[in-house]
Amino acid sequence: MEKVIVGLMGFGNIGSGFAAILEENKEQIECSLSRSIVIKRILVKDPENFTDLNITEEYFTGNADLILNDPEIDIVVELIGGVHPAYEYITRAIESGKHVVTANKAIMAIYGRELFALADKNRVSIRFEGSVGGGIPIIASLTRSLAGNQIEEIVGIINGTTNYILTRMYESNMSFQDALSEAQAKGFAEADPSSDIEGEDAAYKISILTHVAFGVYVKPEDIPCTGIGQISETEIEFANELGYKIKLLATVRRNNGNGSLDIHVHPTLVPFEHPLSSINHEFNALFIKGNAIGDLMLYGKGAGSLPTGSAVVGDVMEIVRIMKNDVFEEKLYTSRYHIEPTSISLGASAYYLRFKVKDKPGVLGKITTTFGKSDISLQSVVQKGRGGSSVDLTLITHEAKRDRLDAALNEIRKIDEVEKVSSILMVQKTP
Amino acid sequence: MEKVIVGLMGFGNIGSGFAAILEENKEQIECSLSRSIVIKRILVKDPENFTDLNITEEYFTGNADLILNDPEIDIVVELIGGVHPAYEYITRAIESGKHVVTANKAIMAIYGRELFALADKNRVSIRFEGSVGGGIPIIASLTRSLAGNQIEEIVGIINGTTNYILTRMYESNMSFQDALSEAQAKGFAEADPSSDIEGEDAAYKISILTHVAFGVYVKPEDIPCTGIGQISETEIEFANELGYKIKLLATVRRNNGNGSLDIHVHPTLVPFEHPLSSINHEFNALFIKGNAIGDLMLYGKGAGSLPTGSAVVGDVMEIVRIMKNDVFEEKLYTSRYHIEPTSISLGASAYYLRFKVKDKPGVLGKITTTFGKSDISLQSVVQKGRGGSSVDLTLITHEAKRDRLDAALNEIRKIDEVEKVSSILMVQKTP
Repeated sequence: MEKVIVGLMGFGNIGSGFAAILEENKEQIECSLSRSIVIKRILVKDPENFTDLNITEEYFTGNADLILNDPEIDIVVELIGGVHPAYEYITRAIESGKHVVTANKAIMAIYGRELFALADKNRVSIRFEGSVGGGIPIIASLTRSLAGNQIEEIVGIINGTTNYILTRMYESNMSFQDALSEAQAKGFAEADPSSDIEGEDAAYKISILTHVAFGVYVKPEDIPCTGIGQISETEIEFANELGYKIKLLATVRRNNGNGSLDIHVHPTLVPFEHPLSSINHEFNALFIKGNAIGDLMLYGKGAGSLPTGSAVVGDVMEIVRIMKNDVFEEKLYTSRYHIEPTSISLGASAYYLRFKVKDKPGVLGKITTTFGKSDISLQSVVQKGRGGSSVDLTLITHEAKRDRLDAALNEIRKIDEVEKVSSILMVQKTP
Repeated sequence: MEKVIVGLMGFGNIGSGFAAILEENKEQIECSLSRSIVIKRILVKDPENFTDLNITEEYFTGNADLILNDPEIDIVVELIGGVHPAYEYITRAIESGKHVVTANKAIMAIYGRELFALADKNRVSIRFEGSVGGGIPIIASLTRSLAGNQIEEIVGIINGTTNYILTRMYESNMSFQDALSEAQAKGFAEADPSSDIEGEDAAYKISILTHVAFGVYVKPEDIPCTGIGQISETEIEFANELGYKIKLLATVRRNNGNGSLDIHVHPTLVPFEHPLSSINHEFNALFIKGNAIGDLMLYGKGAGSLPTGSAVVGDVMEIVRIMKNDVFEEKLYTSRYHIEPTSISLGASAYYLRFKVKDKPGVLGKITTTFGKSDISLQSVVQKGRGGSSVDLTLITHEAKRDRLDAALNEIRKIDEVEKVSSILMVQKTP
């Protein structure tokens, strides 16, 4: 059987999962491709740690050139993570005429455009299914099955760490800190969890999806992003009583094809009837609206050695199918408009607001009057804890633009009885 | 821009949706393919009904030969439905070297093997994403993104009519008959709903998925199939009190790769925590277990003009991409084992059983003893309506094989106080 030779860069969580799947499902993969996939060499930091496992001389190597300069290697699988030197390795691989598969969200979010163009120029393929949603086939679905749709909206739970924390806080009435510690102990959060908690990880991923779905490139750092560090167990309980779960949602919506986008990562109240409200623990889900397909949701494990490894194997197999035909799929990701957005905003949303106010007659009236003056109407008002010196006042607005809301909140902060605006969360519509 | 010429057969619900999407999303499709897709001719029963719409002479035609014998037509899109003459048209199209896209579940379930082989022989593609789950990208995901997985199990809600009926019975405590009438009025059920209600439609679809996922061909008529005609609103209420919704599930599970399958279409109690329990109304969902990806669920509209049209457009676009490269994807569906199953069974399942019994002391003891003798253990027992001459006794068993269960039930029917075995439903495990 003809062999396709792979150079693997990185042998951590995902890299070892990738190799394990190739081994475990060898018969199935060969049966499907009429080719065998062989890892010739693996780049690791400390090859001396792998001497027991060494099958051939220099199977594990610390020298990237042994992969990048090896003309026998057809496909480079980059699973090192981080931006440098992974980006340079990917670039060199493409320039050497090698196909590339990666699960690197930072690189695809920051350098996707450059890499797509470089791959087209060198007539090779680059695939990156594992960079968003682990094994969930979201990139493939957007690129292929849904290609006949104008995608209108993507809303997703695309960070497993924060979803695990929020789920545990909900289930067990834990504090954020305790849930984070548990997530770290179980391997669902890193020692430094800030990129996940603050929403940066989700911003990378929604940037990639925006590029693939709309052909619009948004820099991850331009995406308005609010993390979950401020969410308390009280907030989760209040939301629950109102019929919502709190989830960290990444959202992108295209406005009438003029290139303007509503895009954000924001903690959001999701109504119990919405399918995203039942996505728990480390699971991810993507809710997609297309003008032909209507609502579609994809749900699965958003991270982990084998689920992400599954996406990488799928990508490698897809490239092998293309190689068999000795062609390359030109402009798979670059044929669309491929523009920068004309403007970015948070868009309109209903908001959940919690105030700490002095329990005096008339305070509710003052607040609602201020909203009324700003043309913001309210869906519901709940007052809690009557009797103490200060009480919690929870409001849900109808849809409003954020700048208008912020202006109203500035006025409200000036009201004597208002001690604090404790929470500003988005509220998701029922689909 | 180069044109790809399509002959469309059928202009009903899906056919007109397909044409509408091509028109509405023309710019997007051309941008993505660098080709335009043009429908040259549409086969309809009564072309004279379409004279107002006629753009060119014989755009609508009653003569299939004008499509099948036209060398200019690259792709035949078959959306007539039914087995004959659609099967003969597809066969002739392939033999004339035309690619075929269809959403015809009956043909793909009954003749899939023959058509895959014929397409390979004639070096053309056949695509059928729309035949299962409307717009949900299930065939593409199984064939491509999940190609590196050994699929272990597929469990799906793949019939929108029965899901709509069961949802309405649950929501509004309606009778089966009333919910069916409402579904018919809303266009979710046909005038003769028997194929949906009795599970035949779901059996076609699970047969197709079994072929694609496992390379194992099961005749639809060999699939054990129980419909929902016997489900009463009382049953739904009982299940709800126990923490379950009743869904018509289609299930296939491969046993240790020896070619033996557990496969069935059966009304099933789905625990509230299971993602499938929240799939309501006309929506479909597929829950897939792969040895690398773990659990994956795809959810969307399982039928309808635009969702199914979306799948058909996606298939046509995929073929256009292949045509551009002037290659063909050999053995995409036939490279796997492609065998018949060594055996088919219902497999082991927990069961929900309801008995009508005389309210006399000792009857419960007699029933549980009989189960004990057959090595069937019980998870829970609920007795309802104490006081009347007869009462409802509801039991949930632990996992048991169906033949053993049936043997026990035969013994139980002999007990004097047992008036009737009212219900035998499966119970789904929490994932």
